[in-house]
Amino acid sequence: MASPASGIVDIHTHMYPPSYVEIMESRTTIPIVRKFPQASDPRLILLEEEVKSLEDALKDPQAKVPGRPLTTHYSSVQQKIHFMDTHGIQKSVVSLANPWLDFLDASESPAIAKKINEEFSDLCGQYPRRLFFFAALPLTASLEDILSSVEHVRGLKYCRGVILGTSGLGKGLDDPRLLPVYKALAESKLPIFLHPHYGLPSEVWGDRAGEYGHVLPLALGFPMETTIAVTRMFLAGVFDEVRELQIILAHSGGTLPFLAGRIESCVVHDGQLLREGKLAKSRRTVWDVLKEQIYLDAVVYSPTSLKLAAESSGADRVMFGTDHPFFPPLETDEQGEWESVTWNTAAIRKATEGKSVETEAILGGNATRVLRLDEEF
Amino acid sequence: MASPASGIVDIHTHMYPPSYVEIMESRTTIPIVRKFPQASDPRLILLEEEVKSLEDALKDPQAKVPGRPLTTHYSSVQQKIHFMDTHGIQKSVVSLANPWLDFLDASESPAIAKKINEEFSDLCGQYPRRLFFFAALPLTASLEDILSSVEHVRGLKYCRGVILGTSGLGKGLDDPRLLPVYKALAESKLPIFLHPHYGLPSEVWGDRAGEYGHVLPLALGFPMETTIAVTRMFLAGVFDEVRELQIILAHSGGTLPFLAGRIESCVVHDGQLLREGKLAKSRRTVWDVLKEQIYLDAVVYSPTSLKLAAESSGADRVMFGTDHPFFPPLETDEQGEWESVTWNTAAIRKATEGKSVETEAILGGNATRVLRLDEEF
Repeated sequence: MASPASGIVDIHTHMYPPSYVEIMESRTTIPIVRKFPQASDPRLILLEEEVKSLEDALKDPQAKVPGRPLTTHYSSVQQKIHFMDTHGIQKSVVSLANPWLDFLDASESPAIAKKINEEFSDLCGQYPRRLFFFAALPLTASLEDILSSVEHVRGLKYCRGVILGTSGLGKGLDDPRLLPVYKALAESKLPIFLHPHYGLPSEVWGDRAGEYGHVLPLALGFPMETTIAVTRMFLAGVFDEVRELQIILAHSGGTLPFLAGRIESCVVHDGQLLREGKLAKSRRTVWDVLKEQIYLDAVVYSPTSLKLAAESSGADRVMFGTDHPFFPPLETDEQGEWESVTWNTAAIRKATEGKSVETEAILGGNATRVLRLDEEF
Repeated sequence: MASPASGIVDIHTHMYPPSYVEIMESRTTIPIVRKFPQASDPRLILLEEEVKSLEDALKDPQAKVPGRPLTTHYSSVQQKIHFMDTHGIQKSVVSLANPWLDFLDASESPAIAKKINEEFSDLCGQYPRRLFFFAALPLTASLEDILSSVEHVRGLKYCRGVILGTSGLGKGLDDPRLLPVYKALAESKLPIFLHPHYGLPSEVWGDRAGEYGHVLPLALGFPMETTIAVTRMFLAGVFDEVRELQIILAHSGGTLPFLAGRIESCVVHDGQLLREGKLAKSRRTVWDVLKEQIYLDAVVYSPTSLKLAAESSGADRVMFGTDHPFFPPLETDEQGEWESVTWNTAAIRKATEGKSVETEAILGGNATRVLRLDEEF
């Protein structure tokens, strides 16, 4: 597979660096990391319903281990580089995996954020020109501490943005208390990589959800959570208030590209919004915001959906990603090619067939330009 | 605007027939219809949070009236025909609007279902060859009563399927107790028109949702609810169990066409499904089911999204709809053209540009064929 001139760039790729794993090892509430005699890898426990089986598995060596294996893919930078080499990826912009720092006490989160972001910076420094990162912010801390963290990470050599969940300061991303943070990020030219984390209540999956593995919360919950979060930002006027804010949406915008027309129709047909004078002709539509302030990753596993993503925000605003180390192959060697990656490269090539400029842009050119990956600092 | 040979057919168009309005007038819990001196039309109150302001508005003639106006568009068949004529619609397959019969006691729902379905049949009889309908089932009643209702509606001359919400018998559409109903519908060649109804918990819209009118639950909640419901059916194996079951998804599948690739990826990467032997090579994928058992309406307000819908399930499986009488124009005469309709006709024409066979199929040909609208019975 021939690589584009700028090389393939992966903007959606996670790590739990060693000090973050240590934190999870010391905790008794999620997220937790525990070792079990009956499993070769430590287990990563992210969900409340997995905690119940934790005690059983520690007591009974026959019991099923909870959570997911925390392989070296999650914490080893050498493994990240091997994965990149295997898939022809020249550069990666790594980010802390969920749930980031959102579970930490306000008293500890600023110091931990500083430590983790510096650790990411050091990891990137081990492979200059190949690794960059999105920093994590201590959102449970005071506004002052959060803004200090933005100031800190903008000074880190390989930092190219911040990764954010959808809870913000606890009340979502349309919380007006976040405006100073958005403004600081915009002024620092640090885009937000918006990423979901089991944000829909589990009742929506119904009584039989357990029979379907993790499919419902991952396949539907994640993209729906992202769509809700960014639509709330749009309706709250965040994009108008902070015109320089740039946001990269995980999983090709969740479902935003497909629902953009319906959102617009519901807005222009809403009596309350009309009465409140919110439907001015000069109003920017979802389509405008998609093309001016939103970027999408290409993690959508379908050429037709990828085509819609590229038509929605522009082929110059969509960027390849892998979601590594999640979705490893179940039946082939984890050191080899991952189908969860090749589906997405194939989708990009198919969706942009006959338009090699777009293929190269989505595989790497856009990320290189938008995230300044040709610049050392 | 030139009409296609088969005429334009609207498969997504609702009514509250007179006897249903009477039921809502007599109720004290939602859905409720009430008249207020300060409003010209009766008000339709569908949401729990609207009930609070109901008492205030009845006492204080200055107070804001709750809910939405129940104009003649909701209950008058002459108004439906006028609306169809205004938009060049030759045939409509009308259906009861949400929340259908899902709020009725088991003791009363079979008789009311019978009455309402016969009323629909009579309404259609007033305009033969122009009106058909999707029947409503008494899902709160016993299985025996539900099956009797299927038997009843299959004998009604203008009935062409049934409209169903996502709650089923109270536990969603992946409830195994529904299998006999699905089988009876399949044997009767009655497709399900699957339609959402405020099925996501309101907490997901956040503290500021009230500032955004009805946009979040309508624009996002409705399509997400549909997507969750049909994906649960897929994962439960309903489509394999009842191969002849045909289902028409409202709002172009909610978000199913966009998320199909992600659903497939999450399925093939799910360790539990693998261990349980659910990932056999012969397994039918979401893509297969989309092309074999699912139809989509074209109510998506966007040419690019419509193109994805047509690519997902096939241009021979997408059917025009209006969602009338919802989304009336706010600033122009309700008796004239509705923008919520013209957006969708324009989207169809744009998405199928240069392919007039597909344009005609989506505007009317598919519905005529699939729902046997050329047949009198």
